[in-house]
Amino acid sequence: MTDPDPTPARDVIFGAQQERIQQRLDRLDTDLGAYIRDFAYDTVYDRPGLDLKSKELIACALLVSLGSPPELRTHIRGAMNAGATEAEVRGALLMCVPYLGFPRTVAAFEVLRQHLGRADAPAP
Amino acid sequence: MTDPDPTPARDVIFGAQQERIQQRLDRLDTDLGAYIRDFAYDTVYDRPGLDLKSKELIACALLVSLGSPPELRTHIRGAMNAGATEAEVRGALLMCVPYLGFPRTVAAFEVLRQHLGRADAPAP
Amino acid sequence: MTDPDPTPARDVIFGAQQERIQQRLDRLDTDLGAYIRDFAYDTVYDRPGLDLKSKELIACALLVSLGSPPELRTHIRGAMNAGATEAEVRGALLMCVPYLGFPRTVAAFEVLRQHLGRADAPAP
Amino acid sequence: MTDPDPTPARDVIFGAQQERIQQRLDRLDTDLGAYIRDFAYDTVYDRPGLDLKSKELIACALLVSLGSPPELRTHIRGAMNAGATEAEVRGALLMCVPYLGFPRTVAAFEVLRQHLGRADAPAP
Amino acid sequence: MTDPDPTPARDVIFGAQQERIQQRLDRLDTDLGAYIRDFAYDTVYDRPGLDLKSKELIACALLVSLGSPPELRTHIRGAMNAGATEAEVRGALLMCVPYLGFPRTVAAFEVLRQHLGRADAPAP
Amino acid sequence: MTDPDPTPARDVIFGAQQERIQQRLDRLDTDLGAYIRDFAYDTVYDRPGLDLKSKELIACALLVSLGSPPELRTHIRGAMNAGATEAEVRGALLMCVPYLGFPRTVAAFEVLRQHLGRADAPAP
Repeated sequence: MTDPDPTPARDVIFGAQQERIQQRLDRLDTDLGAYIRDFAYDTVYDRPGLDLKSKELIACALLVSLGSPPELRTHIRGAMNAGATEAEVRGALLMCVPYLGFPRTVAAFEVLRQHLGRADAPAP
Repeated sequence: MTDPDPTPARDVIFGAQQERIQQRLDRLDTDLGAYIRDFAYDTVYDRPGLDLKSKELIACALLVSLGSPPELRTHIRGAMNAGATEAEVRGALLMCVPYLGFPRTVAAFEVLRQHLGRADAPAP
Repeated sequence: MTDPDPTPARDVIFGAQQERIQQRLDRLDTDLGAYIRDFAYDTVYDRPGLDLKSKELIACALLVSLGSPPELRTHIRGAMNAGATEAEVRGALLMCVPYLGFPRTVAAFEVLRQHLGRADAPAP
Repeated sequence: MTDPDPTPARDVIFGAQQERIQQRLDRLDTDLGAYIRDFAYDTVYDRPGLDLKSKELIACALLVSLGSPPELRTHIRGAMNAGATEAEVRGALLMCVPYLGFPRTVAAFEVLRQHLGRADAPAP
Repeated sequence: MTDPDPTPARDVIFGAQQERIQQRLDRLDTDLGAYIRDFAYDTVYDRPGLDLKSKELIACALLVSLGSPPELRTHIRGAMNAGATEAEVRGALLMCVPYLGFPRTVAAFEVLRQHLGRADAPAP
Repeated sequence: MTDPDPTPARDVIFGAQQERIQQRLDRLDTDLGAYIRDFAYDTVYDRPGLDLKSKELIACALLVSLGSPPELRTHIRGAMNAGATEAEVRGALLMCVPYLGFPRTVAAFEVLRQHLGRADAPAP
């Protein structure tokens, strides 16, 4: 029922890119960067009760609803870093079909394709 | 990686209320009712690749994004029927805070409160 | 290609309820009421180029996307006043399924059911 | 009241580009590609009750609400393939002003401009 | 450029209802209640840089975009507690017309009417 | 309570770019261009009751909710043309965090960064 893992979520989600991402956010606005690190990650994400893989699959679905490609790519990678398989990520994105319809879901699979590096399909 | 459970998702999610819910949808529109049963549930939900509990936690988060209280209540119950604990449902709803903000999340916890039957708080 | 009908759209859409609806809007805010009458109806709706029935079917679909039950009911009635059959209204609402998903569409059919006075199904 | 045309909607909407579009979707995800072809097009779109031109004008309006430029361009072309005039497409997009406001509508007219090949205006 | 007022924003916005509102949120979920108090109010709202009246007028507009009537009522009252006149609140809500369209704005003026206690118009 | 300034809002907001922007809108659709000039600006924006700086800060927040980067940039410039400081614009954008969550707000600060010409951060 609880998540005993002491590793901060942002270490897992961002991996080696964490410092670069945090610097980019801090340059946008130092308060915004602090809110994301201290509140979104170190408070909400690090709260026990749900495992990190489930949190990241939920984050992916919510980013499909928002239509936010760059963040979606970050959290597809984050979900996989937290242990999700490609099949599980596909399953999470396909759950958006009955709730959000096809256009947002198609856009999400474009992001997944880019993440997986399958460059054999022309960009839309 | 696959979901070997042969029980249809809608049997688990709706439980004893399945017939009543399907009849209500069919009365709204027979084609709509058929689309929900045959496509949303028997095709998308029953697709292997992700376990049903994860699908329902994702459904809850997407319903928070849509602001759809009646369906959210149905799928909070569905998530618990599929094995989610109250703590996991709370964790899924709290993941909406960084992605959707507070108003939609507060409304979702009102629905959870009603589902749990905790009538000690006044309705908003 | 143009709509030669000189009847103002709001006469057709609102019918005998026009005065009551306009008074309600004016009481909310006199400027808001004037904007809706002079701009939304007498400028945008009365612009030629597309027939009124098509405009109202589009309005219904957009109100499904917004999740606005009272206005949806007004414009389901408006679409029918402009010549749409019940089958055409159902067809317009079902087009929302692939674009918006099921929850908003189900809510729209609840509004249609109320409009059609089919009280044989329990409210959600 | 019914649409007797036996031509599948996707033949009309996509025309010569159908195979290319379906291959792109299948490459994103084979299940997603199948859902769009078998459910969105061959089930929902091919359902009688509303003519295809009206369905496509509604699709355009819903895509304005979603802010999905690539799909909007596809369905502006689809509406015209189904018999809509440029004036009717403009009328459908302008109906978005009172329901969705100006920013989404302006973005939609940018897509229309690109479709019509009027390259005399600078990109935004 | 900065807001020297040491009074916490939530004291002004909620006034005598603060304790009741916080208790309701805490009963929904203790973490959610703490996030709203410590992050939304004591961190974001109490950050200097913009006066509280402007923050609350912005909050009202954002709540119109979300379609959240109960929170909108709270922040209409909050804007007035922070010094906004009724004319300024009306001006803020009318700014939603060009950006969000009429349906959400009409719903917002219904909330304003209820707040102002003008019961001479029938509810929708 | 009223705004005695006789300068049209669009003169302040658009400054030297007004003619170019209006021509671009007129080329998209002459009716759309007229609606924006005559209704959005000369009717809604020029309505007294709220000062122009507040209107533009509200417009910025609403454009964050819509996820419309080009218009957001126009109205960040408009807010500053109407007297808002950079600190006030940052304060308005940060108010979106509790209401809309982080992804839309981060995208908004990207637009602010581009407007301020701070090219020292890599594009996302």
